[in-house]
Amino acid sequence: MAAVAVVQGASRGLGLAFCRHILLHRPSAALVATCRRPSGAATWRAVGAGNPGRVTVPAAGRGPAGGRQGGGGPRSGKRSGRADLVVNCSATLHPSGKGETSLRDVSAEDVMATLTTNSVGPLLMAKYFCPLLQRGGGKFGQQHPEKAKQHSGILINMTARVGSIGDNVLGGWYSYRMSKAALNMATKNLSIELGRNRQKVVCVSLHPGTVDTDLSRPYHKNVPKNKLFSADYSVQCLMSIIDRLNIDKTGKAYAWDGSEIPW
Amino acid sequence: MAAVAVVQGASRGLGLAFCRHILLHRPSAALVATCRRPSGAATWRAVGAGNPGRVTVPAAGRGPAGGRQGGGGPRSGKRSGRADLVVNCSATLHPSGKGETSLRDVSAEDVMATLTTNSVGPLLMAKYFCPLLQRGGGKFGQQHPEKAKQHSGILINMTARVGSIGDNVLGGWYSYRMSKAALNMATKNLSIELGRNRQKVVCVSLHPGTVDTDLSRPYHKNVPKNKLFSADYSVQCLMSIIDRLNIDKTGKAYAWDGSEIPW
Ligand SMILES: NC(=O)c1ccc[n+]([C@@H]2O[C@H](COP(=O)([O-])OP(=O)(O)OC[C@H]3O[C@@H](n4cnc5c(N)ncnc54)[C@H](OP(=O)(O)O)[C@@H]3O)[C@@H](O)[C@H]2O)c1
Ligand SMILES: NC(=O)c1ccc[n+]([C@@H]2O[C@H](COP(=O)([O-])OP(=O)(O)OC[C@H]3O[C@@H](n4cnc5c(N)ncnc54)[C@H](OP(=O)(O)O)[C@@H]3O)[C@@H](O)[C@H]2O)c1
Repeated sequence: MAAVAVVQGASRGLGLAFCRHILLHRPSAALVATCRRPSGAATWRAVGAGNPGRVTVPAAGRGPAGGRQGGGGPRSGKRSGRADLVVNCSATLHPSGKGETSLRDVSAEDVMATLTTNSVGPLLMAKYFCPLLQRGGGKFGQQHPEKAKQHSGILINMTARVGSIGDNVLGGWYSYRMSKAALNMATKNLSIELGRNRQKVVCVSLHPGTVDTDLSRPYHKNVPKNKLFSADYSVQCLMSIIDRLNIDKTGKAYAWDGSEIPW
Repeated sequence: MAAVAVVQGASRGLGLAFCRHILLHRPSAALVATCRRPSGAATWRAVGAGNPGRVTVPAAGRGPAGGRQGGGGPRSGKRSGRADLVVNCSATLHPSGKGETSLRDVSAEDVMATLTTNSVGPLLMAKYFCPLLQRGGGKFGQQHPEKAKQHSGILINMTARVGSIGDNVLGGWYSYRMSKAALNMATKNLSIELGRNRQKVVCVSLHPGTVDTDLSRPYHKNVPKNKLFSADYSVQCLMSIIDRLNIDKTGKAYAWDGSEIPW
């Protein structure tokens, strides 16, 4: 049984880098890549086209069961109805592209839009993909030596260090911070619910560092060069954390270097 | 200069008990009580009517500047354009009245509705009332002995222990838990932004215990009698915390007994 990985938000940035990484370093894995406008995601299409038979691109909003085939391989999540890894990547910093610097910039509409994309979206992904993860073969992560503690799948919510309440010293970025705090609560809740039964799903939040993507672009000039990671480097670090995950590590937030982030 | 207190969500439950407490125990304070349907809030109207000259009830959605007069007193927040205390009470457990017991019960619509009322609402209150709090006279709380650290106002966000990510062992109640985690982030962010300048506003999250109100009603049968507080008792505990607040205690979550709640 081949491993199946699902990457949500695969069009660009870290999601795209996760796809590249899995295609390159997990040659036997099938990949289901979701994004809201598959036809517009040119870079992503190029990656998919270079890997015929391994990649499925469901149509946006139709979930894993239905959907258009990209590379359309026989080992896709759709056909087998199971998944070993789901990575929730999609997020927005703010509809304007820049986080609020103060309360004055806060608008109900923008907070709601950010919460929808960053908190509600990943929770719905969890709802619809968790049955697939519960049928997974535990092909990602490091299996627990005790049989009763072995996991069937791994769910990753991409969080951000600024989503930590305890770590917050600068303030600002109301919408984004609140959305990631809510997402971290979802991670904790999911880890409890999905860690309970025999089909255990490991669920963690991961912080990728400050990464050179569209999301962080407005702030790059303030970041020292050696602290601004490429998406590929960040994903390499994150995948090495994922490779060591088991059920004992569920329900936490980890940074790219493996350190735990306080809530 | 008389103290001015603003209670949002004054129609019933803890909001109403805050109003009763302030009218009874702070006889010189003016009270601005907001709720979305002032005409429908019968119990609240009775309280207001018994205290002529001390109570203002702004029309819903119009904020502190405009609004219908309830008791319409000369010391109301409206006229003076300042406030010493703002308490954000409104919240919903879930549009259905019961929290989700598992992922299966989660719907995007219900999560969004809960986040709107419980997280976005209080943040907007903060946005529009913070100028009033910055003009306050610091009449609630205990003033810091150092002049440079004295506060002008206090902002309370009513949170819940189940909104603590670190304290979460049972899971479930996705919408409510996520909304209160987001609210706690707002509290932290606000404490940073509003603690910075000369007009310091203390901002904390408070957990009232398990209180006999409509919100918790579906769960009362599971609560030992001595752990189910009356709204009046809970508010008495919370007011004794508020009476001891100063800027050194800002940006935290406290339970009814004064203990700090982890994020
Ligand atoms: N970059 C950083 O420094 C950094 C730091 C901390 C955390 N993170 C987190 O890492 C994750 C990936 O971010 P990134 O840097 O790769 O961002 P990015 O390059 O801006 O990519 C954002 C992704 O989210 C999708 N997306 C945005 N809004 C959406 C919506 N409303 N509905 C559906 N999809 C939507 C985009 O799809 P389209 O192409 O269709 O727009 C795209 O796939 C995010 O969760 C982010 O919060 C990033
Ligand atoms: N009771 C508990 O055991 C408990 C435990 C932990 C935390 N809390 C927190 O304590 C606070 C007060 O709760 P409570 O027990 O007093 O609840 P409650 O008796 O159910 O009262 C809820 C209040 O919120 C208002 N409200 C609800 N939905 C609203 C909306 N969509 N827009 C505007 N106002 C809305 C209600 O106004 P209407 O009358 O117009 O509906 C009412 O004033 C809440 O923040 C709650 O989360 C309560």
